[in-house]
Amino acid sequence: MAANNTITLYDLQVSTGATISPFVWATKFAVRHKGFDLDLVEGGFTGIMERTGGMTERLPAIVDDGKWVLDSWGIVEYLDETYPDRPMLIPHESVAVLTRALDSWFWGAAVGPWMRSYCGDYRDVCYEHDKEYVTSTREVILGGKLEELQLGREDRLPAISAALEPLRLALKESDFLGGRTPNYADYRIIGGFLWLASLAQTPALAADDPLRPWVERVCALYHGLGEHPGLFPIFGLEPREADPPLFMPEGVMGGINKRNTGPASTQAETKFINKDD
Amino acid sequence: MAANNTITLYDLQVSTGATISPFVWATKFAVRHKGFDLDLVEGGFTGIMERTGGMTERLPAIVDDGKWVLDSWGIVEYLDETYPDRPMLIPHESVAVLTRALDSWFWGAAVGPWMRSYCGDYRDVCYEHDKEYVTSTREVILGGKLEELQLGREDRLPAISAALEPLRLALKESDFLGGRTPNYADYRIIGGFLWLASLAQTPALAADDPLRPWVERVCALYHGLGEHPGLFPIFGLEPREADPPLFMPEGVMGGINKRNTGPASTQAETKFINKDD
Repeated sequence: MAANNTITLYDLQVSTGATISPFVWATKFAVRHKGFDLDLVEGGFTGIMERTGGMTERLPAIVDDGKWVLDSWGIVEYLDETYPDRPMLIPHESVAVLTRALDSWFWGAAVGPWMRSYCGDYRDVCYEHDKEYVTSTREVILGGKLEELQLGREDRLPAISAALEPLRLALKESDFLGGRTPNYADYRIIGGFLWLASLAQTPALAADDPLRPWVERVCALYHGLGEHPGLFPIFGLEPREADPPLFMPEGVMGGINKRNTGPASTQAETKFINKDD
Repeated sequence: MAANNTITLYDLQVSTGATISPFVWATKFAVRHKGFDLDLVEGGFTGIMERTGGMTERLPAIVDDGKWVLDSWGIVEYLDETYPDRPMLIPHESVAVLTRALDSWFWGAAVGPWMRSYCGDYRDVCYEHDKEYVTSTREVILGGKLEELQLGREDRLPAISAALEPLRLALKESDFLGGRTPNYADYRIIGGFLWLASLAQTPALAADDPLRPWVERVCALYHGLGEHPGLFPIFGLEPREADPPLFMPEGVMGGINKRNTGPASTQAETKFINKDD
């Protein structure tokens, strides 16, 4: 049982003091969801092995009353298994499977493409002593010079925003991915938005994006855990004339987000597809 | 309470006798999941208002002891609310939210693109008396001649297959999207695969696609509910030389599907990103 109701979390920060790692962000929310206080060990991208006494090369890592637990998924499983009487992060095994699917989609649709559009900002916001390591390793991962890769991002950001429609649809009728209360699905996905907010020197999403209330609702949890003063605004992207819509307006024709309540509810579509005006 | 433990379901079929609608497929599994027998009212795309006595223009629709329930989501909510002592289709409200997100992603990533690659087959497999209606309405929806739209599909199918990686990742460690047992998330997504199987004259996925065991596992439920003899094979796509991989091989480097169990588990990646061979 966590001494003093506190769990130690090894952070991964940038020069503003904000957390950058989406996995550390998700883990911060997870520890607080279980009702524990956070004892943060600060630090950036380099020196992780030294800070953790050789326990891990990657973060997050937590220490619970002397017990080390690694890996963001491993930490969630540990917290729910060890503290089943506290609010569950994964309230049903199906939530774990579906969150993995959603996370994988979100990574490919948003976090990955955003990384290629913000990789220069990503490096620039790091601690000075991390910049050489971050530059060389990310150039290997991304296959190019960071400042060159992010060039032309204004042409790519609208399509990334448009691709988030599955998340907008899911949250249209629900406050949280968890339903009426948040769970690890919310924390996992908010991690990607907060990662972006830790580094973005230009907004990625429209000011009136339907996702914004959910982002703000999750960030406000646990006394504003996701409202660090070092974060940059991610809402405020202005569409240019030829850009595709940044999100779908309400009421667009489309099978899966309508309800059939009888012929009156389908007549407009029927008229349209029958060219029957 | 359903008389004789049986619920009436209005089907939407093609000339083979197989169900085509992904929403009717999902609903068939949903009714059987709740332990009810199915009383199917057969029929195709036209004459739905006549068959249902003016109750609906769209299917699925069920009748439970005289009570009409419309809309695939509406039916699921009705079944769980009315029969909470039978196995739940949505065992936690988070499963509904996450299934909506996954379904929306799957529609955009697979069902929509498959429709544009199989819209000629879609029409050709219909009952003769449905073909004129299906041709004219789908040409409005898709914006072109069906046989022209599906031309060149061999160039598009590999990318659609590759886009299904989030589903493969989620099912790597789990038999079902529901976890150890299936739930409505499985039925919702299998509906798209069975829709494809009802019409595809050429396979869309590799014979050794990692999704295949899950597809076959779900189709085998309820005495082979998804194994109708009128279905066509969807596995068996042969990649051509210049095609991208149809699915990611095991063990590809990628953050979210690995586990950090300490420095030994991350050393290979560390060496690679440090160009430290």
